[in-house]
Amino acid sequence: MARKINIGLIGYKFMGKAHSNAYLSVSKFFKTKIEPVRKIVCGRNGKAVKAFQKQWGWDEYSTDWREVVAREDIDVIDISTPNSSHCEIAVAAARAKKHIICEKPLAMNVAEAKKMVDAVEKARIVHMICHNYRRVPALSLAKEMIDAGELGKLYHYRGFYLQDWIADPNFPLVWRLKKEHAGSGAHGDLNSHIIDLAHYLVGDIEEVVGMMETIIKRRPLPSGTSGMSGKSGRKMGRVTVDDAALFLARFKNGTLGSFEATRFALGRKNGQRIEVNGSKGSIVFELERMNELKYYRGGDSNGRRGFRLIQVTEPSHPFIEGYWPPGHIIGYEHSFINTIHDFIGAIAAGKRVVRPNFEDGLKVQRVLEAVEKSSRVGRWVKV
Amino acid sequence: MARKINIGLIGYKFMGKAHSNAYLSVSKFFKTKIEPVRKIVCGRNGKAVKAFQKQWGWDEYSTDWREVVAREDIDVIDISTPNSSHCEIAVAAARAKKHIICEKPLAMNVAEAKKMVDAVEKARIVHMICHNYRRVPALSLAKEMIDAGELGKLYHYRGFYLQDWIADPNFPLVWRLKKEHAGSGAHGDLNSHIIDLAHYLVGDIEEVVGMMETIIKRRPLPSGTSGMSGKSGRKMGRVTVDDAALFLARFKNGTLGSFEATRFALGRKNGQRIEVNGSKGSIVFELERMNELKYYRGGDSNGRRGFRLIQVTEPSHPFIEGYWPPGHIIGYEHSFINTIHDFIGAIAAGKRVVRPNFEDGLKVQRVLEAVEKSSRVGRWVKV
Amino acid sequence: MARKINIGLIGYKFMGKAHSNAYLSVSKFFKTKIEPVRKIVCGRNGKAVKAFQKQWGWDEYSTDWREVVAREDIDVIDISTPNSSHCEIAVAAARAKKHIICEKPLAMNVAEAKKMVDAVEKARIVHMICHNYRRVPALSLAKEMIDAGELGKLYHYRGFYLQDWIADPNFPLVWRLKKEHAGSGAHGDLNSHIIDLAHYLVGDIEEVVGMMETIIKRRPLPSGTSGMSGKSGRKMGRVTVDDAALFLARFKNGTLGSFEATRFALGRKNGQRIEVNGSKGSIVFELERMNELKYYRGGDSNGRRGFRLIQVTEPSHPFIEGYWPPGHIIGYEHSFINTIHDFIGAIAAGKRVVRPNFEDGLKVQRVLEAVEKSSRVGRWVKV
Amino acid sequence: MARKINIGLIGYKFMGKAHSNAYLSVSKFFKTKIEPVRKIVCGRNGKAVKAFQKQWGWDEYSTDWREVVAREDIDVIDISTPNSSHCEIAVAAARAKKHIICEKPLAMNVAEAKKMVDAVEKARIVHMICHNYRRVPALSLAKEMIDAGELGKLYHYRGFYLQDWIADPNFPLVWRLKKEHAGSGAHGDLNSHIIDLAHYLVGDIEEVVGMMETIIKRRPLPSGTSGMSGKSGRKMGRVTVDDAALFLARFKNGTLGSFEATRFALGRKNGQRIEVNGSKGSIVFELERMNELKYYRGGDSNGRRGFRLIQVTEPSHPFIEGYWPPGHIIGYEHSFINTIHDFIGAIAAGKRVVRPNFEDGLKVQRVLEAVEKSSRVGRWVKV
Repeated sequence: MARKINIGLIGYKFMGKAHSNAYLSVSKFFKTKIEPVRKIVCGRNGKAVKAFQKQWGWDEYSTDWREVVAREDIDVIDISTPNSSHCEIAVAAARAKKHIICEKPLAMNVAEAKKMVDAVEKARIVHMICHNYRRVPALSLAKEMIDAGELGKLYHYRGFYLQDWIADPNFPLVWRLKKEHAGSGAHGDLNSHIIDLAHYLVGDIEEVVGMMETIIKRRPLPSGTSGMSGKSGRKMGRVTVDDAALFLARFKNGTLGSFEATRFALGRKNGQRIEVNGSKGSIVFELERMNELKYYRGGDSNGRRGFRLIQVTEPSHPFIEGYWPPGHIIGYEHSFINTIHDFIGAIAAGKRVVRPNFEDGLKVQRVLEAVEKSSRVGRWVKV
Repeated sequence: MARKINIGLIGYKFMGKAHSNAYLSVSKFFKTKIEPVRKIVCGRNGKAVKAFQKQWGWDEYSTDWREVVAREDIDVIDISTPNSSHCEIAVAAARAKKHIICEKPLAMNVAEAKKMVDAVEKARIVHMICHNYRRVPALSLAKEMIDAGELGKLYHYRGFYLQDWIADPNFPLVWRLKKEHAGSGAHGDLNSHIIDLAHYLVGDIEEVVGMMETIIKRRPLPSGTSGMSGKSGRKMGRVTVDDAALFLARFKNGTLGSFEATRFALGRKNGQRIEVNGSKGSIVFELERMNELKYYRGGDSNGRRGFRLIQVTEPSHPFIEGYWPPGHIIGYEHSFINTIHDFIGAIAAGKRVVRPNFEDGLKVQRVLEAVEKSSRVGRWVKV
Repeated sequence: MARKINIGLIGYKFMGKAHSNAYLSVSKFFKTKIEPVRKIVCGRNGKAVKAFQKQWGWDEYSTDWREVVAREDIDVIDISTPNSSHCEIAVAAARAKKHIICEKPLAMNVAEAKKMVDAVEKARIVHMICHNYRRVPALSLAKEMIDAGELGKLYHYRGFYLQDWIADPNFPLVWRLKKEHAGSGAHGDLNSHIIDLAHYLVGDIEEVVGMMETIIKRRPLPSGTSGMSGKSGRKMGRVTVDDAALFLARFKNGTLGSFEATRFALGRKNGQRIEVNGSKGSIVFELERMNELKYYRGGDSNGRRGFRLIQVTEPSHPFIEGYWPPGHIIGYEHSFINTIHDFIGAIAAGKRVVRPNFEDGLKVQRVLEAVEKSSRVGRWVKV
Repeated sequence: MARKINIGLIGYKFMGKAHSNAYLSVSKFFKTKIEPVRKIVCGRNGKAVKAFQKQWGWDEYSTDWREVVAREDIDVIDISTPNSSHCEIAVAAARAKKHIICEKPLAMNVAEAKKMVDAVEKARIVHMICHNYRRVPALSLAKEMIDAGELGKLYHYRGFYLQDWIADPNFPLVWRLKKEHAGSGAHGDLNSHIIDLAHYLVGDIEEVVGMMETIIKRRPLPSGTSGMSGKSGRKMGRVTVDDAALFLARFKNGTLGSFEATRFALGRKNGQRIEVNGSKGSIVFELERMNELKYYRGGDSNGRRGFRLIQVTEPSHPFIEGYWPPGHIIGYEHSFINTIHDFIGAIAAGKRVVRPNFEDGLKVQRVLEAVEKSSRVGRWVKV
């Protein structure tokens, strides 16, 4: 019988749902040594969090995260709240010796992120940041290939993350557009992903130069409660985060990087695109076709070279064995199942290090902050 | 509190897993009036079925389907066994007044299928055949568009289902390659899907002409227990089903149809492809990119026409609201969740008719059989 | 200095233009031993043919093809007229000992085609049928690969040719829609191409079963002179050719074939698509992206397999050396330049056989006719 | 009868061939008022240029460009030489009152480019820079759409130009890799194209920040005469141009720009990719599929939105009427035919301004130089 661990989930919106599903499914698709128990979910709006608790089968709900963190029967604190509360919750959870998985970006800034790293290091618990895309099988495969030298020496990393959900100027001023809640806009939300993937696939970034722009500066305030689905009211308010953030980078190993995040690319819904070019080959990944990896192998025979469209659905591919036969695709949510799989796997194994952890989160934060500084001072900035 | 119904699942392999996951998840992603309880799972190999029971969280297991069917506390019999046992189980379940969902193809032949239809009609229960692809959102959308006249009068239906999993002549002689267990090969397994989709999107088929071929006629017998993952032994046996089955069709409404199923198309893993051309537009669907529907609208302005790549991940698209934001894709398993959603929805609503039902399954069987006859007699055959 | 040969071109519409351009360009892109001289172009409408002569730089024009065939200074007769006149012109040209290149399909029927083959064989001249797609570099490459065994034993040939230019019921009744001028509709115009490619890539066809359909049976007569660009008048007339023709085939080597031609696939402009599956690999070709060949190699290493998108623009690829650097694509017209290159190359080398020749054209005609017969009698017909 | 003008072509390699073909074909595909005469071609290597003269049907050849410029019967000087000689030839040609078309980039630097602009302005002749991609029909269509407001206010311009032809470290040190001949590497060769397209589609650039990198710093000297096809010898030499150049930009109208040129992207042969996002729609263009334009129209009805794959081969599309029916694609060389068409059209019409002209070339040069400066000083630089 698998050992059980009790999860306390803080936050019950988009990420709360994705994480709940992962806890629900991970021990079904995989033979895990630990079975996560959906013990308690926490949010500020009692009615809403109660409805969520029922829907997703959590045992209890609470409106006070401190109470959850304080409970002795809780083994893991899962932080799926807006960015502004990550630090406080994480530090408290670490003090309470809970294992922690935290949504990205780790914090509002480097200072907070450092505090969090200090806290988890001192507490000697398992900590992870939920950069779920590392565990999209196609990207895990890309990592395997790069580590095995199949791409040779890396020359270029090109990361884009294009969306369009706020391109309409009448879209309301939701919390994600306010600096005090979100820290930043497209930058922290989207660039954080492609920076983390850059660290994963290529390595550390040495210096950056960038620009950030708020394209629509004033928007209608939400008529009701805020949120992605909120409707616009009549009053206007100021957008205090970036709509787009672009930067160039030099990696420590000499690779050249190009990054772009925007919420103003009409037609791009979840348009993450990663391309890596090396001396022996190239790979291209597009999130909206996340079961595919394009791979160009320079060593293929003359006249037969071309980007291969690998359907990353073979049993030999990372994480696939738990799922379906070749060609039967998985979806967005499975990247969370795979992440939770490895998180609870680390707990089960008594390993303290599972990547990406809070230090990886801090590293992303340093890059985010260096880009912000660069965009203010107008020149290259060391990370 | 949602009303609960108890499920008895017969079969625990590929389809058993897909159905288990659907029962697990349906009331999470959707607000259902009924909550399915994973009550009992049944299979012949006690050890294996017990392991499955634990893995997927069924309350009990059994090795005798008759016992399951006989239990008073079971509301639904889910038939996920090989084709050869569908008829017997379904007829017994109908007699026991259980609601039934049955994997496709419905039966081994038209005679069996008729018996099943008679039984369920007499029993006045809810019956459904699990042609799950009708509820891939992109195909549900295609249906909506066709029903709304957006494609105009239909001229062509082109359905292909190409795979390659037995292209290796050393792949063992698993049960799917024996007529006594599977009824037919690519024909019943794959053509049944694209015939059902043809019925769904276009309408009834009037006549067919076709050919069926066994490309590799002898294969090594499996060394251990048979199954898709079995290894090859030294002894050889005869393949008694088709490897490929192609046919042309005329629909009652005049549409021209072209169908092909094969397990010998190297590189095609789950290569289902549907194209429909009408007087006002066309649609194209590819299962390996199941979140996309290509749509050509003849009425677009001159010089701006082109196939649109619709990402069927918008809240307005069928079934999507339960899942994720635009551009965050779903996978193969969600077609089962959607199917089960509508199946239990029909039970909840006291509606006896949810499509596709056993009559739809019978209709597919008639087409399959007409093609088989045509391939024997070498001429067009009325359905 | 290259030897010159004088061309007499009969026909000056779509094909006349494509051939004129080929004669103009072939000795520029390639080092040819023979330089074709655009000597005389012939058509029935004196004013129009004179305008064409000026435009494309032919030395002279004529309105009487017999006069052209009779001229001693003419070495090659190029037959680019509607199908109904191919036979008469070709037989006369052969008698006059001219080398002949003839547009496809070769003739109105097998009887005519035989007459033509007899005539050219007796005359001992170089004869070619302009199935230009054999010399699209991607298809020439496919042939090389198949001949080299890279696809192994062939299992499936899937050929489609989908267009939409007459899908509008008000499109006028141009000559291509009248049996007396065109012989057949989509069948002779489009299926002839994919049958020839089947012969080229796979081999001879043994038997076929098919259906042909005239979807729009009456259309407005053209208001002015007929032709593809004609406008519709008020009077109506009967369409006497097929709009769509589909058939299944067995090749002599056991390969299974599926063919479809239609002019009623909205959104498909020049939608030719060829797929060949063999025991070692597969290839896919799409004419609208004619510089690309998709190639799946079964022998690629585990977990790295996928269809390769070969850009057939490398110097090592067929015909490419004459053109541009990798990635700089060629277009439709280059398939004619390549064809004429090999045609005049055969003349220069004193070789009588260049493929596809009139015998290949006759072979296509036999398949076309067998399909027509099958569609009448409703059963399989031997070719 | 069309008026004739005599062309003097300086340079006979890659661009000399592309231009020769354009002069050969332009009056065939289009009804031009002027017919260009391939009068004289000029190059330093007498034997080679003579062979080229024969191959491409020029009346004469010369090894002294000054002599060609001085000839009274020459109307147009076409400068297709390496960049280092553009300025001297153009200034001389302008003094001699010849119309000029010059390959890109216009010059080695801004100072030279200014001299050239001064000279052509004083001479009052027609001058054009051969940024041929403006006249790829898909990009001309994109321009039409942007000018018509179909994309609304522009937010983003993303231009990439990725190649791989020198990714092999043993590729020899050809002239394009030496600063004294080429001015710069990927930057001038590739970025010049996507900068010009940015000017064409979006408008003027205000400031830039960038980086340039020489990835392989030493290479074998060519064993024979230099050139793209040269073989490597044993001696090594220093690469004095960039291999990759990336930059960010702000346009005067507020659009954000991202540019990248590299010759180290394995698998990318001619990987130019342009994306423009505006408030009403987006377009995407890829040069290797240059007959296609992807277009997302925000105003499409709900649930039916998606990038349209426009095949830019309709008669209503720019330049297409001269060529082939829908779906019959054109190639790389046709962008030159279209360019020459408009160049000689301007001469015929007595219009002095045809775009892009030398001022456009100067504008590109200013951006190139600003990026170079930025890469030295490490901060944003005004153009």
